[in-house]
Amino acid sequence: MKYIAGVDIGGTNTKIGILDEEGDIIIKKSIKTLSLDGVEKTMMRIWETICELLREKNINIDNLEGIGMGIPGPVKNQEIVGFFANFPWEKNLNIAEIFKNISGKITKVENDVNVIALGEAKHGAGKGSKSSVTIALGTGIGGGICIEGKIISGFSGAGGEVGHMKLVKDGKLCGCGQRGCFEAYASATGIEREAISRLKVNKTNELYKKLNGQIDKLEAKDVFECAKEGDKFSLDIVEYESEYLAMGIGNILNLINPEKIILSGGVSLAGDILLDRVKEKLPKYAMGVTLQDGFKIEIGILEENAGIYGAAALIG
Amino acid sequence: MKYIAGVDIGGTNTKIGILDEEGDIIIKKSIKTLSLDGVEKTMMRIWETICELLREKNINIDNLEGIGMGIPGPVKNQEIVGFFANFPWEKNLNIAEIFKNISGKITKVENDVNVIALGEAKHGAGKGSKSSVTIALGTGIGGGICIEGKIISGFSGAGGEVGHMKLVKDGKLCGCGQRGCFEAYASATGIEREAISRLKVNKTNELYKKLNGQIDKLEAKDVFECAKEGDKFSLDIVEYESEYLAMGIGNILNLINPEKIILSGGVSLAGDILLDRVKEKLPKYAMGVTLQDGFKIEIGILEENAGIYGAAALIG
Repeated sequence: MKYIAGVDIGGTNTKIGILDEEGDIIIKKSIKTLSLDGVEKTMMRIWETICELLREKNINIDNLEGIGMGIPGPVKNQEIVGFFANFPWEKNLNIAEIFKNISGKITKVENDVNVIALGEAKHGAGKGSKSSVTIALGTGIGGGICIEGKIISGFSGAGGEVGHMKLVKDGKLCGCGQRGCFEAYASATGIEREAISRLKVNKTNELYKKLNGQIDKLEAKDVFECAKEGDKFSLDIVEYESEYLAMGIGNILNLINPEKIILSGGVSLAGDILLDRVKEKLPKYAMGVTLQDGFKIEIGILEENAGIYGAAALIG
Repeated sequence: MKYIAGVDIGGTNTKIGILDEEGDIIIKKSIKTLSLDGVEKTMMRIWETICELLREKNINIDNLEGIGMGIPGPVKNQEIVGFFANFPWEKNLNIAEIFKNISGKITKVENDVNVIALGEAKHGAGKGSKSSVTIALGTGIGGGICIEGKIISGFSGAGGEVGHMKLVKDGKLCGCGQRGCFEAYASATGIEREAISRLKVNKTNELYKKLNGQIDKLEAKDVFECAKEGDKFSLDIVEYESEYLAMGIGNILNLINPEKIILSGGVSLAGDILLDRVKEKLPKYAMGVTLQDGFKIEIGILEENAGIYGAAALIG
């Protein structure tokens, strides 16, 4: 029996799982990333945890085929990380080589959101589809394009960075420093900005009541909760969100024409109240042909395990 | 010696070429498409022309390996055309099968702009690049995404339809019936619409003089010609064009992150006056990482042979 380790490195926590030949996670553990200790120590700690998990399952280390890793940043050739989004590590580090030197095992690295997309494509909502684009709607918006089982990583490792597609010329300022990005409108932060801005001038609504007037405490999920309870003010914000989401997804459909769009991340948990509106608005933005032949837009199903599954899918 | 036929089927003319093993066009001919005669007759006429070209070069028909075809419309599995953009032929025709039955040869079909993109990627401006996106800027805007020698055809054959990516929410009406499309702003038609609209209120410029006041005769190339001569009014329109072109290209870069962007079609003939402005504006729209590592934006070089080259590249 052969095994693969899937590692999902995040800003705070790193999730590590061991998968068997059927592709099932047989054991997993979350450790602190502690990136301030430096790249070598973090990688050592990850390798020690992999060994510990193998021991717990009485698996001989020789039966570990390789390690797949998802990491925040653009990754070239599944080995070199252009820069790290959250870690104080140097640029253009060959993480695959560093980890191979520590472990003696084949190691492949990919951008964290690309890895989530690969996970959903192979083991999640996209299973059985020839192509899918996964859009991770959280604090920001990330994405991954998966065609016939392969991630479109891009020339500099920035493939699938859908969040920085511009929807509005000279539009709202984005965290990236540019203007009018999809992320500035349709991420959780985008929803929060819009809601806060509207609450400044309208306080007679359920959302304001829910927050007890503490506007700065507002989170995107508060908007969805009030909308589900029928608050007109919150429903209007959901309309706003779904309009830009449909525009962004429409653009992806016109360029990539995938079999499936998979929404993941915190905002996707809003569920049907958002998804139904997006579906209704898509024909305004996507060419008709891209919405036919059984095209589907769905919510991701792997949740916190998507990264482990996708990282492991880089191997073999 | 093996040979391949490349066929570029257009609304009016069909270009047919025979390529040798080195990938060079050794003979070619253009015939009328005459689509009103029906699909069978058009295909028969194409096959007869291929046979005629082979005879002229004393090539035995047994040495013809196969036929590649570019056709206007979305193409699935390189065989079935969802609908024909210009021809009165029925939907979902298996053109590959029809042609194989006539010729007895392997036949592969792909969308005409995807085929141009494949031609430029393999034999033209994109030769040697791992990935390229070709944008055909003509009356409309088409595109093709080529990654590691393969076209992203899409689930319904609509991959690379960059012209209908929306740049402006509820923007200018496009020929497709939707609003705010890249094509409505940055195609030759887009330039002409903008120029005509501006000429309605400003007649003291070189462009108006050049047209002798016959605004309805205006073509995009008139704008570029006057701009090159320093006409401020025309230069402003080129600025407008380059801004939307940079926004559209920026979005493609953020999604696909290709090694090269190749501009082809009539508008691309404007050359540096347009290209320099687009390059200057790209950093406002594209993520910095996508413009590094030797990324290039260039004008296509295959011109009217791009379709023949690309169609032939579908085989083998």
